[in-house]
Amino acid sequence: MVSDLKIMKNTATLLINCPDRKGLVAAIADFLYRHNANIVHADQHQDAENNLFLMRVEWDLNGFGLTPDTFATAFAPIAERFEMQWQLKLSQQRPRVAIMVSHYDHCLVDLLYRHQSGELACDIPLIISNHKDTQRLADFYGIPFHHIEVNKDNKADAEARQFALFDEYNIDLIVLARYMQILSPEFVKRYPQRIINIHHSFLPAFIGARPYHRAFERGVKLIGATSHYVTEVLDEGPIIEQDIMRVSHRDQIDDLIQKGRDLEKVVLSRAVRWHIENRILLYANKTVIFD
Amino acid sequence: MVSDLKIMKNTATLLINCPDRKGLVAAIADFLYRHNANIVHADQHQDAENNLFLMRVEWDLNGFGLTPDTFATAFAPIAERFEMQWQLKLSQQRPRVAIMVSHYDHCLVDLLYRHQSGELACDIPLIISNHKDTQRLADFYGIPFHHIEVNKDNKADAEARQFALFDEYNIDLIVLARYMQILSPEFVKRYPQRIINIHHSFLPAFIGARPYHRAFERGVKLIGATSHYVTEVLDEGPIIEQDIMRVSHRDQIDDLIQKGRDLEKVVLSRAVRWHIENRILLYANKTVIFD
Amino acid sequence: MVSDLKIMKNTATLLINCPDRKGLVAAIADFLYRHNANIVHADQHQDAENNLFLMRVEWDLNGFGLTPDTFATAFAPIAERFEMQWQLKLSQQRPRVAIMVSHYDHCLVDLLYRHQSGELACDIPLIISNHKDTQRLADFYGIPFHHIEVNKDNKADAEARQFALFDEYNIDLIVLARYMQILSPEFVKRYPQRIINIHHSFLPAFIGARPYHRAFERGVKLIGATSHYVTEVLDEGPIIEQDIMRVSHRDQIDDLIQKGRDLEKVVLSRAVRWHIENRILLYANKTVIFD
Amino acid sequence: MVSDLKIMKNTATLLINCPDRKGLVAAIADFLYRHNANIVHADQHQDAENNLFLMRVEWDLNGFGLTPDTFATAFAPIAERFEMQWQLKLSQQRPRVAIMVSHYDHCLVDLLYRHQSGELACDIPLIISNHKDTQRLADFYGIPFHHIEVNKDNKADAEARQFALFDEYNIDLIVLARYMQILSPEFVKRYPQRIINIHHSFLPAFIGARPYHRAFERGVKLIGATSHYVTEVLDEGPIIEQDIMRVSHRDQIDDLIQKGRDLEKVVLSRAVRWHIENRILLYANKTVIFD
Repeated sequence: MVSDLKIMKNTATLLINCPDRKGLVAAIADFLYRHNANIVHADQHQDAENNLFLMRVEWDLNGFGLTPDTFATAFAPIAERFEMQWQLKLSQQRPRVAIMVSHYDHCLVDLLYRHQSGELACDIPLIISNHKDTQRLADFYGIPFHHIEVNKDNKADAEARQFALFDEYNIDLIVLARYMQILSPEFVKRYPQRIINIHHSFLPAFIGARPYHRAFERGVKLIGATSHYVTEVLDEGPIIEQDIMRVSHRDQIDDLIQKGRDLEKVVLSRAVRWHIENRILLYANKTVIFD
Repeated sequence: MVSDLKIMKNTATLLINCPDRKGLVAAIADFLYRHNANIVHADQHQDAENNLFLMRVEWDLNGFGLTPDTFATAFAPIAERFEMQWQLKLSQQRPRVAIMVSHYDHCLVDLLYRHQSGELACDIPLIISNHKDTQRLADFYGIPFHHIEVNKDNKADAEARQFALFDEYNIDLIVLARYMQILSPEFVKRYPQRIINIHHSFLPAFIGARPYHRAFERGVKLIGATSHYVTEVLDEGPIIEQDIMRVSHRDQIDDLIQKGRDLEKVVLSRAVRWHIENRILLYANKTVIFD
Repeated sequence: MVSDLKIMKNTATLLINCPDRKGLVAAIADFLYRHNANIVHADQHQDAENNLFLMRVEWDLNGFGLTPDTFATAFAPIAERFEMQWQLKLSQQRPRVAIMVSHYDHCLVDLLYRHQSGELACDIPLIISNHKDTQRLADFYGIPFHHIEVNKDNKADAEARQFALFDEYNIDLIVLARYMQILSPEFVKRYPQRIINIHHSFLPAFIGARPYHRAFERGVKLIGATSHYVTEVLDEGPIIEQDIMRVSHRDQIDDLIQKGRDLEKVVLSRAVRWHIENRILLYANKTVIFD
Repeated sequence: MVSDLKIMKNTATLLINCPDRKGLVAAIADFLYRHNANIVHADQHQDAENNLFLMRVEWDLNGFGLTPDTFATAFAPIAERFEMQWQLKLSQQRPRVAIMVSHYDHCLVDLLYRHQSGELACDIPLIISNHKDTQRLADFYGIPFHHIEVNKDNKADAEARQFALFDEYNIDLIVLARYMQILSPEFVKRYPQRIINIHHSFLPAFIGARPYHRAFERGVKLIGATSHYVTEVLDEGPIIEQDIMRVSHRDQIDDLIQKGRDLEKVVLSRAVRWHIENRILLYANKTVIFD
């Protein structure tokens, strides 16, 4: 449905994070110009309070004078001079995404359809679930599905099997699409800034379990959903995206749950998309989203 | 700006709260019909979980066969039979509203303009502030202004003077338009369901002080505002209205504060309006808003 | 995903449309009470300008003293006295919905998933498309799929085949889920108030073809979608629901199309849901939505 | 209410519009670096379809090596090489804004309060109205008010008096805050991209007169407002900002008008703010808003 051009584009994206100093933009722009880069998108952010400079620049690789291999050496002097943390991402190296899911399948259904329609420029080679419900859906989309039961006694074993699958499939990003198990600290530590979760409330309201029930009891007039990177403290990782929907006294808990599904789908898929398009930079437990 | 018809309308509004039983609507509708009421608006809500029936019905008083004085006696048999709590409100008895304000005057400015333009069908005979800043604005609108300083040592005295003013001006509703003092339990107890506050966050997120600063630190992608009735537990009274606005990494704290002002104005004014139009029913620390 | 209770409920819904007169509500409520109805939801609307009364009342059939067959006779005196147009709908007679679709399948995918998850209380026994793309999806959900090619020369024939299928499957509602063929006047006349379309703009802006392209050219800051009943004049039928999404100069036409898909799905599914839950009343080319 | 820092800042903003070419950003960044600019904000946009490059860069003037007078000469070689159209704006040269208003004063009230509270970094030395209603408000804020009656016979004369006032007060921007007179082509030509209007609909829906009445008749579910630059064709100038609000069958025309006021205020004030902060670039009858 989406034009093929978008999917086939051949660009490099450079993400930079460093102390803010004069001459930064000039040095980067001059470097790219000297190597004949055709910039298609650039955005930057200065955080005055933390004296921080964050930048995302994307250029067409046609005619560019460096290869991914020679880039690092050529860029090193600038990177060192300005004390940069940097990453180079190539649009043609599509990130490999694993989806973890439990009973609720609306986010999974949504992500798979968006992927198929060309909206998500990634590969999805793996679905893991602690239930068998979504096997048939995975089959429909031709994606390997692994059922790994999780209970109080086998958690470490189950996670070990999950890690093995992530390794086998060379997974870059893990998406928790309403996966209802709490990950161990080891799991979280193993994939820093590489696990995205959807929480069904407007965080930091209703941290923890059963947020719709608690929203109903509190009598809020809006319900929300929040996608965030998973860190060691539950529901306190950097927020990527949030959205809300209006509710009224007419809405019972079932209605909140149903309305919330539409929120969860959209809020999770935006986070996944921005991550795989290398639009997210992290600092101070917050995200910068370069749109 | 608003048509005079709206302001001059002559209606009665009956608010009912009782256990849900068959025949309720028939009994009420028959009663109104027998007394020749011309219903202009009716709305009801059944809460199945709590077996509760809530109703708001408004009718034109032209041709109605009862007076406000005779209504209670005539309605008593029905009210008793169905164990109703009920209130009768007359559109021509405009509620008398006092506004309390501190330094931040945006909500005050907004309420006074809405009142002048006919949007709020109430009288505003009193403004109380712990600062003198808004005196000139009160004068512009011709509203008596009382400066009552509040500090750690004189709180009880200050509140006593406030109570005296509320009595003197026959105040029905107290609106805290960014009034930055915490009311004593006595104050709150004295005006049950008659104090409306605006909190500058999406409650229950960021309960308490400096919500915009905490929202900034948490890196939320939306900021909110909440209007609620004041009860004894800070920021936990029944929520009347909430709304949100999108923010990004580009927004510093000053930007959140500024964007938030637009939210606070709208969210507080809706609550005040619904209260004075008798559209709010309370139960289980929640509100039903009959629109 | 949704509680079975919702799906299995056994209620009747009465929709009424008549001149506004005193005693209407009393007469209806008394009638229902005499026949032992347990009202679970009631809503009404008075249109003062057109002197019109519109009502939706839903009651539990457990213990109700009339059958669907005896209802009409029992209700006739009231209906005649107040010159009512009325319809009685039973929750257990699920409407039968046909979906028509062309290349773009996002609305179809969305409707089928919502149906499967219990959100749409209807049967979907038929999908018709002028392309074969969605056959596999129909198979996945086990729904009969009919490919009927449409071109300039065979339009009348194609529609005749469509009518035959609607008859064969006893279709109550036809949903145009991005069906890109214009229906003939005969088609529209045959199914009055029984065809719902999704238009990918905020009507009446960008009536007709290629609304996203025209929105892009005009430089709007919001894009929209509109679901409406189909009438003889293109894109001018009664509007059921609309929603919008923010766009910026960064969004190219492809981005508008992609963002718009999320709007179209939500806006169409709400319209379908409200229709099958008998929440929509029509008058003066407008809809009343009883929520 | 807003921190003084914001108001007192001393920056320069360069707005650039030219054909997209390699080396553009490097040339600009290098130029600024050589003259010791401390960039506080930079944003750019490439329009691939039109091969256009648009940029906004803002830097602190403390320590900058050029004066406003010497800037043009120093920048000329780059500007010529890349065929740039460019403007340099200084934060300390506050734009001078005239507001024109008729009966409806809500936008005027809103703009004056925002200005007073420090939200709008401009001077407002002039209010012109074809009615006397807002004189008292202008006096409250200490702003010269001129009543210039406009009728069919005196339009040219009235505009001549308006032009004389704009000249006398050195007006940079004219804001039509619900000014209900149509400007002559001469007026519009005299102030290209310097007149901002608020239209009370979601353009291009309901172009022309009485948009709320037409929205009501059409039965839309959302109403909107649009701020735009005024060009010779009525309501077809470049759109700066739009927003919408949900309405229902319960809303009569008066309700639309009232709800719309909240929209108009916000949508107009954003446009004015972005204009005076030099965030708007125009091309192809569209706006780029650098946020």
